[in-house]
Amino acid sequence: MPEKPALRIGLIGTGFMGKAHVFGFATAQKVFDLPYRLELHTVADVTDESAARAAADFGFAKATADWRSMIDDPDIDVIDITAPNALHKEMALAAIAAGKHVYCEKPLAPQAADAEEMARAAAAKGVKTQVGFNYLCNPMLRLAREMIAAGELGEIRGYRGLHAEDYMADAGGTWSFRHDPAGGGALADIGSHALATAEFLLGPITAVMGDCITMIDSRRDGQGGTRSVKVDDVGRAFLRFANGAQGSIEGNWIATGRKMQHDFEVYGTKGALAFSQERFNELHFYSVADAPGRRGFRRIEASPDHPPYGRFCVAPGHQIGFNDLKAIEVEGYVRAIAGETAEPFGFAAGLRIQRLVETIQASSAARQWKAVPA
Amino acid sequence: MPEKPALRIGLIGTGFMGKAHVFGFATAQKVFDLPYRLELHTVADVTDESAARAAADFGFAKATADWRSMIDDPDIDVIDITAPNALHKEMALAAIAAGKHVYCEKPLAPQAADAEEMARAAAAKGVKTQVGFNYLCNPMLRLAREMIAAGELGEIRGYRGLHAEDYMADAGGTWSFRHDPAGGGALADIGSHALATAEFLLGPITAVMGDCITMIDSRRDGQGGTRSVKVDDVGRAFLRFANGAQGSIEGNWIATGRKMQHDFEVYGTKGALAFSQERFNELHFYSVADAPGRRGFRRIEASPDHPPYGRFCVAPGHQIGFNDLKAIEVEGYVRAIAGETAEPFGFAAGLRIQRLVETIQASSAARQWKAVPA
Amino acid sequence: MPEKPALRIGLIGTGFMGKAHVFGFATAQKVFDLPYRLELHTVADVTDESAARAAADFGFAKATADWRSMIDDPDIDVIDITAPNALHKEMALAAIAAGKHVYCEKPLAPQAADAEEMARAAAAKGVKTQVGFNYLCNPMLRLAREMIAAGELGEIRGYRGLHAEDYMADAGGTWSFRHDPAGGGALADIGSHALATAEFLLGPITAVMGDCITMIDSRRDGQGGTRSVKVDDVGRAFLRFANGAQGSIEGNWIATGRKMQHDFEVYGTKGALAFSQERFNELHFYSVADAPGRRGFRRIEASPDHPPYGRFCVAPGHQIGFNDLKAIEVEGYVRAIAGETAEPFGFAAGLRIQRLVETIQASSAARQWKAVPA
Amino acid sequence: MPEKPALRIGLIGTGFMGKAHVFGFATAQKVFDLPYRLELHTVADVTDESAARAAADFGFAKATADWRSMIDDPDIDVIDITAPNALHKEMALAAIAAGKHVYCEKPLAPQAADAEEMARAAAAKGVKTQVGFNYLCNPMLRLAREMIAAGELGEIRGYRGLHAEDYMADAGGTWSFRHDPAGGGALADIGSHALATAEFLLGPITAVMGDCITMIDSRRDGQGGTRSVKVDDVGRAFLRFANGAQGSIEGNWIATGRKMQHDFEVYGTKGALAFSQERFNELHFYSVADAPGRRGFRRIEASPDHPPYGRFCVAPGHQIGFNDLKAIEVEGYVRAIAGETAEPFGFAAGLRIQRLVETIQASSAARQWKAVPA
Repeated sequence: MPEKPALRIGLIGTGFMGKAHVFGFATAQKVFDLPYRLELHTVADVTDESAARAAADFGFAKATADWRSMIDDPDIDVIDITAPNALHKEMALAAIAAGKHVYCEKPLAPQAADAEEMARAAAAKGVKTQVGFNYLCNPMLRLAREMIAAGELGEIRGYRGLHAEDYMADAGGTWSFRHDPAGGGALADIGSHALATAEFLLGPITAVMGDCITMIDSRRDGQGGTRSVKVDDVGRAFLRFANGAQGSIEGNWIATGRKMQHDFEVYGTKGALAFSQERFNELHFYSVADAPGRRGFRRIEASPDHPPYGRFCVAPGHQIGFNDLKAIEVEGYVRAIAGETAEPFGFAAGLRIQRLVETIQASSAARQWKAVPA
Repeated sequence: MPEKPALRIGLIGTGFMGKAHVFGFATAQKVFDLPYRLELHTVADVTDESAARAAADFGFAKATADWRSMIDDPDIDVIDITAPNALHKEMALAAIAAGKHVYCEKPLAPQAADAEEMARAAAAKGVKTQVGFNYLCNPMLRLAREMIAAGELGEIRGYRGLHAEDYMADAGGTWSFRHDPAGGGALADIGSHALATAEFLLGPITAVMGDCITMIDSRRDGQGGTRSVKVDDVGRAFLRFANGAQGSIEGNWIATGRKMQHDFEVYGTKGALAFSQERFNELHFYSVADAPGRRGFRRIEASPDHPPYGRFCVAPGHQIGFNDLKAIEVEGYVRAIAGETAEPFGFAAGLRIQRLVETIQASSAARQWKAVPA
Repeated sequence: MPEKPALRIGLIGTGFMGKAHVFGFATAQKVFDLPYRLELHTVADVTDESAARAAADFGFAKATADWRSMIDDPDIDVIDITAPNALHKEMALAAIAAGKHVYCEKPLAPQAADAEEMARAAAAKGVKTQVGFNYLCNPMLRLAREMIAAGELGEIRGYRGLHAEDYMADAGGTWSFRHDPAGGGALADIGSHALATAEFLLGPITAVMGDCITMIDSRRDGQGGTRSVKVDDVGRAFLRFANGAQGSIEGNWIATGRKMQHDFEVYGTKGALAFSQERFNELHFYSVADAPGRRGFRRIEASPDHPPYGRFCVAPGHQIGFNDLKAIEVEGYVRAIAGETAEPFGFAAGLRIQRLVETIQASSAARQWKAVPA
Repeated sequence: MPEKPALRIGLIGTGFMGKAHVFGFATAQKVFDLPYRLELHTVADVTDESAARAAADFGFAKATADWRSMIDDPDIDVIDITAPNALHKEMALAAIAAGKHVYCEKPLAPQAADAEEMARAAAAKGVKTQVGFNYLCNPMLRLAREMIAAGELGEIRGYRGLHAEDYMADAGGTWSFRHDPAGGGALADIGSHALATAEFLLGPITAVMGDCITMIDSRRDGQGGTRSVKVDDVGRAFLRFANGAQGSIEGNWIATGRKMQHDFEVYGTKGALAFSQERFNELHFYSVADAPGRRGFRRIEASPDHPPYGRFCVAPGHQIGFNDLKAIEVEGYVRAIAGETAEPFGFAAGLRIQRLVETIQASSAARQWKAVPA
C-alpha cells in the first residue's frame, strides 16, 4: 500500500478554536480514511515562546511568531486561520495569493464586503476554502436535511431557530474584541450559526426583518474605566425562505443558564423535526404517517444509520462529542481539497452568512424588512 | 353554619368551552371554600333540544333556546358566554345593561373597538367581569410571576413566548368562523395566550413589530367549493417591555405535531425560567446563586408550596389537569364578585390583549414597528 | 328525559383520600354520562364537629360521628371507606352485611387474610366493590395495556416497575400508623401500586424474590421518645410472570426528591414502552416496525384517541390531573354497580395485591423465592 | 523543551474496541499533556493482511499476525489487548511475564479465577495494568463520586443501576462467543458496567441476591442449525453496600429500543442524583438544601468545572463523546505508568468486577443471597 500524500498544515492561532482544529485533524486522521496524511507542519502565535509551546503541545514540527513566514513557505499546503476575526482577511488574502488552501474560523470576516473580497480572491485563484460552521457537521443535522429533502415532512412551512448562550450575560465582564462595533455582536458571533443551520436545512432566505438590541451598553475596559458597547446582545429576525416557508431565528449571548442552545424546529405539512444542540446526538421526529393514537415526537438517537457516526463508533447511542464535529468538518474539507467532493462550506458560504447577518443588522437599524442579496 | 348565598349562573354555549366552564364550576365548588354556592341556573343553546340535552348533561335546572330570556331573568346573577366570538359583544352588552356579572370566553371580542365598548360598559355599570385566559391560572405561572417580582432572576432582560398547536395544519380542513377576516387567525386565537402570559410575567409591552402570515390561503367551504382565507396561520412579534426587557412571541396553529406548545423562557441577570405547557406541572429554574459546577435548570414540580395546588392535592407531584386550571379561574372570578379580590382578568384585561393583537396585526400590515396604546 | 336514579353515598373519612373521592364524584358526574345521579348522602368523621365541617365543605347532606349509623341507614347505597387502613375490614364487613356496595381505599386491608375475608364476604353477598388503585385509571395505562394485548410490542420479555416517593425520607419525622408492623411499609403503601400496574399490563405474577429493608429503624414518637420501626422503607422484588416475562419492581418511600416516580418500562420482541407518572399524560413507544434510521421512543401525548381522555377535553395535549384519575375510577365503579361492566378493580383484585405484597415480604424474610398463591 | 519519552504500544485486536483504543490514544495525546509520547508501535491481528490493513488505517508502524512476537519485542512497553475475551488471560500472562504493562479490554477474563491469576501475576511482576471500564471516565461520574464523597447528598441510602441495550434482542441473531457459557451473558458483558459504576460511586458491595435469566434459549449457529444458549439475557441483583446503603442493578441486552441505558440513581438523606448515559454530559442533582418551593432535580451540564472536560473544550455545554471517554481512560493509565497516580482501574479492579459477576451468577443459580468475597 503506497503512502498517502501529505497535506501540510500551517495553523495561525492557538486559542479555543486553534485547539479544536488540532483535535479535529488528529481525530479525522484516525477516524476517516482520508485521501491525505495530515501533517502538522507549522504553528504561528503571537510570540516565539507561545508558538513553541503550542507546537510542543499540539504536535507541530515548527513554530513561528511570524505568520507571514508560513505564507511564504512552499512546504505548507493549507493555511488554517483561527486568529482574531479582524485579522482573517489579511491572512486569508495573503495565503490565497500564495496559492494556499485556506481554512478559516468563522466569521469569515466581520464585514461582508471583506468576506466578499476573500471569496472572490479564492475563487479566482482556485484554492479550496472552508469556514468553520461546525454544527452543520452533526450527523443529526445531515439526517434532518436528508429527511426534509426527501419530503418526509411534506412541504416545509415554518422554522424556528436559535443560538443562545450566556457567556456575555455578566454585565461585570470586560470589554473584548467581540464588543467591537466593526463586526461583533451576538447575531454575528452565534446568531450566524442559527442562520447557517436555517439555510442548511431549508435553503435560501430571501427576506428578513431584524431586531438587534444592546442590553448592556457599557463594559469595563480593564483599566478602571468603562467602554461603550454598541453591538447587539440579542439579534433576531423574521425570515422568508425561497421555498415558501417562513420563520424566525435568534442569536443571544446573554441568555443566563444557556450554554449551547442551538435549537431548531421545522414544521411541514406531513411532519416536524425538533432539535437541541444541548442533546445533539438526538433528533426528534413527528410524522402524521404514524397511526392515530400512536403519534408523537420520536427521539432518534445517533447511530451508524446516520453517517458518518459509524466511523466514530460501530454501536448506536454511544454519542459523538463537540470535537468530533470538528473532525467531520476536517474530513469534508480534505476531501474537497482532494477533489472528491465540492467544498462543504467554503468562503462563498461564509460570505453568504455575513450577508445575512449584515442584512439583518441593516434591517434592524432601518426598522424595515430587507431583501437578502442573492 | 349558615348556608352560603347562591351565585346563579346562566351559561350561553355548550361546546368545548361551555363544557370546560361547567367542569370548572363543579370542581371549584368542591376544591375551594368559595364565598358563594354556585348554582347552575339556566343554559342556552341554539335549539330547545340541544339546550335541554345540555341542561341534563351539565346539571342546569333550566334550558332555553333564547339567550335573551336569561338576560331578563332576575334570578340569574352571572351570564357566562361561551358562544362564537362574533356574538360576545351583543350578549355581553345586553347582560351588562341588565346588571349581570359577565364571564366571557376569550377573545373578549374579535375587534378591540368592540372589546373597548364592552369594557367601558362593564366599568360604567360596575359589574364584575372575567375573560377566560385559563393558562394564567396555573400555579407554576403564578410561581414564575412571584419569582420574577421578588427579583429571584435579577433584572429581566429577555423573553421568548410561544403558543403553537396544529389544529389548522391540515390544508384539507374546512373553512370555519376562525378563518374569518373580522377577527380570527392564529395570533388572535392562540397567540393571544402567548401575549397574556408575557404581560402576566413581565408587565406591559410597549412596542411591537409584527409578522402575520397566511400559509394556507384557501380552504374547502364544505359545499364542494373553496373559500379564501385571509387570516394568519402564524403570527409573531418582536416585543419591547416597559421594564426594559425585549423579546418575542409566536402564535401558530399549523405547527404539525404540537398540541399545546404554550412555552416561555425568561432570562434575567441572576437567573432564568423555562416552561412548557406540554408539561405544565413543572417550572425549570436556573440560578446563578447556585455554586459553580452545581448550576443547572432545576425542574420544580407543582406542590402544595405553589398555591392553589394544595387545594387539589395535599401531596406534591400528583399534578393538576387542564380542567383544574378552569376551576382556579372560576375561583378567582367568584372571589372578585364577592369583593374579596380584584378581578383577576376582567374585560379591561381582555381588551388589552385585543389591543396587543391588533397592534401586531397593524404592524405586520404596515411592515413597521408600532407603539402599543396604553 | 327521565331523571336518573340516585346512587346515595356514605363516606367514611375526610382526609387526603376522602377529599380525592369527593372530587372524583363531582368530576365523574360532570364528565361522564353516568347511569346514576351521585348523591352525597352522609359523611362520617371522628367527631360531630369535624364531620359537620366536612359535610359543609364537601357538600354532603348529613354528617355523623358514628359510621355505624350509616351502615344501618337504608337510604345509603354505597359505603365509601377512606378511614385508616386498620379499620377497613370492620367497616367493609359491616357494610357488606348490610348489603351495601363498598368502595374502599387501598390497601383493602393490611393483611391478606383480612382482605380475603372481605373479598369472600362481598362475593357471597353479591355487592359491588372497588379498591382505589387510581393510577390504573390513566388513559395512557389503558393505552399501554391495549398495545400490549394487541401485540404491538410482540411477545413481552421484560418489565421494570417502580413507585418511589420521599414522604418518609426525613428521619426526623414522627412515627405514624404507616410504620406499624401490622401492615405498613413502603412496599405495602406504594410498592402495591407498582405491583398493580405490573399485573394490569402483563397479567399474573407467578413467583417473586423479595427484598424489604428498614433503613430508618426508629422514629420519634411525638412525646419526646422514639419508637422502633420494623416496616420496610424500600421493598423490591424480582418477578416471574405467567406470560413468560421476567422483571422487577420497587416500592420506596425514602427516595429523596421523588414525588411521584411511578414508572414502568416494558420490553417486547417488537417494541417497548416507557412511562413515568411524573409526566403521566405521556407514553413513550418504541417500535422496530419503524424504518431503520428513523426509530426512537416516541412521546405519545394523551388525546381523545385515548379514552376516556376525550370526556375531559376534546382537544389533545391539554392534560388531565390526578383528581381526574379518581373520577375515572368512580366512573368504572358506578358502571359496575349498574351492571354495565365488570368491577374494574374489586375486592378480589385488592386481595390479589395484598397477596403479592405478603408473598414478597415473606420471601424477603425467608430470603427465598416464593410462588405467588393463585 | 526536551522530547518526552516514548511509550510504545502493541495492540492486539482491531475490532470495535481496538479502534476505540486507537482513537483514545490519538485524542489523549492531543488533549492532555501526557508524561509520554504515545507511539503506535505494532498491531497484531489474525492474518498478516488484516494486521497490515489495520496498521495502515490506525497508524501503527508495524503489523504482525503473531501476537507472541510483540511480547518478545523489547521495543514495546505496553501490550493492549482487545482480542476476544477467551484469549485475554493467555495474552496478558505472557505480556506480564515479559515485563510489559498491560491494558486489557473488559472483561479481564470470563472467569474470576483466571482474572485473579492475572491480577496476581501483574502485582508480582510490578507492571501497571488497566481494564477498560470507560464509562467511569465520564467527568459527570467523577462529579457524582466527588459529590457523594463530600457529603452533598448526606448519607447514602439507596441505589438503582442499569445497563440495558438491545443488541441481542433479535432472537434471529446468530450465536456468538458472547453466548458461550464459559463467561458470557448480559450480566458479564454489560451488567458489569452497572456494577463498576455502583462501586465507583458508593464503595464495596458486600452481599448480593442474583437473578439471571435466559430468555432466548437457542440461537442460529450460522450453519443452518441452532445452538443452545445458556447465558443470561437479563441479569439483575439486589445489593448491600459496606456503607450501609442498599440497592439493585440490572444488565440487559434484550431491552428493545435501548442503545445505551447505563443509568443510575443515588438517594441520600440530603439529596439525590440521577444520570443516564443516553445523555451522559448531564448529571441531575436534587438538594434538600434548596429553598422550599424551589427544589427540583437540576440538570448540570458538563463544563470546565468538571475536570477533565476543560481539556477537551474551554466552553461549557459543548459535550464530549464516547471516544473522549476512552481518551480519558488512556490518560489515567499513562499517568499510572509514569508513577504520577495510582492505577485508575487496574487488574485488581477488573478482578473485583468478575467476582461480583460470578457471585451474582452463583447466587442466582443457588437462589440464595451470597456474600461477596472481599
